[in-house]
Amino acid sequence: MRILGIDPGLATLGWGVIEAESGRQRLINYGCILTTPQQRLPDRLKQIGEDMRDLLALYQPDEIAFEELFFAKNVTTAFTVGAARGVSIAACAAYTDRLFEYTPMQVKQAIVGYGKAEKQQIQQMVKLLLKMDHIAKPDDAADAIAIALTHAATGPAREQFLMK
Amino acid sequence: MRILGIDPGLATLGWGVIEAESGRQRLINYGCILTTPQQRLPDRLKQIGEDMRDLLALYQPDEIAFEELFFAKNVTTAFTVGAARGVSIAACAAYTDRLFEYTPMQVKQAIVGYGKAEKQQIQQMVKLLLKMDHIAKPDDAADAIAIALTHAATGPAREQFLMK
Repeated sequence: MRILGIDPGLATLGWGVIEAESGRQRLINYGCILTTPQQRLPDRLKQIGEDMRDLLALYQPDEIAFEELFFAKNVTTAFTVGAARGVSIAACAAYTDRLFEYTPMQVKQAIVGYGKAEKQQIQQMVKLLLKMDHIAKPDDAADAIAIALTHAATGPAREQFLMK
Repeated sequence: MRILGIDPGLATLGWGVIEAESGRQRLINYGCILTTPQQRLPDRLKQIGEDMRDLLALYQPDEIAFEELFFAKNVTTAFTVGAARGVSIAACAAYTDRLFEYTPMQVKQAIVGYGKAEKQQIQQMVKLLLKMDHIAKPDDAADAIAIALTHAATGPAREQFLMK
């Protein structure tokens, strides 16, 4: 099964694609959709939608796992992060209804076995699990791979993590 | 010039289309895109994107005016309202770069001449200005018409309200 993990954001949307089969995971590719504050918000959101559709067409994932948002510095930040997340969810929803979401704590629990693990521990485990020769950069891409791995690790229990 | 006004929201997205020419405004149509909490979030966002694209194809507005969001009850609400707004902005941005935004206070100022006007005063003025035989319902649609009228009333100064 091919899994696309997404760590949504307006300036940086991290993504990672893995192939998961009978308990083994293989990294296909990872990267970021980047927009800049010099772009107008409509252009940034349009670009995120278009780039997401390109990603889906290119990697044709079977299932997609998002990081669930709970937290923002303030309401204004929540509006813009929510907008970027909304656009990427809408693009994915037009492609498949197999959309899932995991909290940062669930990702830490699944990858390191400890819900309060440090970011560095996650990154090291991602590198180890996927036999990468270096840590994925930027952090948003590493996080996206971790989300995809979490979805793979959740197994048959994953239906409870369907995005509501 | 044909103007589409949008009052974005997840459950109810109000829209109103007016034709504005040499200081006269004519109502073309108005309504709401409705989604329900029984739908999954991805389905709601997908529907908002699809319905927005249908609206744009049907009414072919020259310019689009959004209500600017500043305020939400909490961060969770800001995420979902921001998501709905982001999806509608992305759909509009794929159609035109003539996207504008106005705060609720700017709408009140433009329609009633008083930045702290009550909702009912706005609705009465919308009815009067467009020679409607009743107040537009629901409120979100009336608000959307008011946003379109605000954009029409702003005249050449409107460039400063381009969405950033």
